[in-house]
Amino acid sequence: MNELSPIRDPRANRAEEQRRRILDAAIRCFARGGFHATGMQAVCAEAGMSPGALYRYFPSKEAIIEAIVERDRADIPAQLEPLLHAENVVDALIASARAFLVGNLRPESLPMFLELSAEAARNEAVRGIVMRCDEEVGDIVARAVQRGMAMGQIDPTLDAREATRFLMALTDGVLTRLLLEPAAELEGLMPMYERSVRRFLAPEPAPAAEAAR
Amino acid sequence: MNELSPIRDPRANRAEEQRRRILDAAIRCFARGGFHATGMQAVCAEAGMSPGALYRYFPSKEAIIEAIVERDRADIPAQLEPLLHAENVVDALIASARAFLVGNLRPESLPMFLELSAEAARNEAVRGIVMRCDEEVGDIVARAVQRGMAMGQIDPTLDAREATRFLMALTDGVLTRLLLEPAAELEGLMPMYERSVRRFLAPEPAPAAEAAR
Repeated sequence: MNELSPIRDPRANRAEEQRRRILDAAIRCFARGGFHATGMQAVCAEAGMSPGALYRYFPSKEAIIEAIVERDRADIPAQLEPLLHAENVVDALIASARAFLVGNLRPESLPMFLELSAEAARNEAVRGIVMRCDEEVGDIVARAVQRGMAMGQIDPTLDAREATRFLMALTDGVLTRLLLEPAAELEGLMPMYERSVRRFLAPEPAPAAEAAR
Repeated sequence: MNELSPIRDPRANRAEEQRRRILDAAIRCFARGGFHATGMQAVCAEAGMSPGALYRYFPSKEAIIEAIVERDRADIPAQLEPLLHAENVVDALIASARAFLVGNLRPESLPMFLELSAEAARNEAVRGIVMRCDEEVGDIVARAVQRGMAMGQIDPTLDAREATRFLMALTDGVLTRLLLEPAAELEGLMPMYERSVRRFLAPEPAPAAEAAR
């Protein structure tokens, strides 16, 4: 019995455990061989389950990928929540980007981000899964950007949608570099990221000549 | 006979043509199935060549990937050259980033960028190939950043190496987004990119209070 869900059907617990076991096995397989090259049989072998048992939980490889992305993004709303209440939106954007980067630098999720992107370029179903998650994040970030504009913290002449897209590109780019370049470190890149985001979002300063008059 | 190489061994021409044919076939295979899942046999079939003929040109899949990256980066020094001579280094950095983005948005190289990144996270040999190219670009960009600092166009208090790493992360992030998000367009993201790079690199303005004294 667990504090968060005191009344729990033991069969539901068992099913959840089996699903987790399959997803963890699939992540190990995908990390080794990529999505495309990994068959359901390899996932069965890694999970130590028969195909019959596995197919009861996941009818296809896409269903497994979808469940992995869903599980991954379960934390996202909680991570992004502060954006919609923070007194300083820019500080909150930087803090949530740091949480995203730190979360994705765990060794077990390291290759998943790049693998998902590569597979999304090739497989419509996977692209749909990745883009649904991406849109959800984008909607929250865009609302935060608009809040920051209304509060005078973010340049109101920016296009909120394009600025959001750019902030997401920036964060993904930093993550890719941290994953690929051995010399790149979060503590080296974060000050650059922070300087860039602050300056990018800052309202145009009043021209000196104007201010002096 | 061709104007650029008037004296040319016909056998050398033939070998170059065969190499090109193999690389083009390999790119099509990789785009469909990824590096990892694509065997040399599939490349042979796509190129319409026997394994014996193909292995004469490329002893392994890694050799093919290396040749593709080499061919891709043949244009890079010419693209980056202006950075080391431009009167305005920041303008030149933005122009070369645009050239890089436009070059990688050609449909035939579309999935290669993401695929290379995903495979680099998994395969030491591929990571080495990608990183060698990356270092070459990084060295030129870092020299340009230092030039811009010396010319008073770039904040001299920045760490040139970290700033370079960040500019490369930014550019890769924009490319990834252009490749993956259907609604993202170069003409929408470029103004964001440009604003970000200009503001990121700009020297700290003299504080208004100081300037007024």
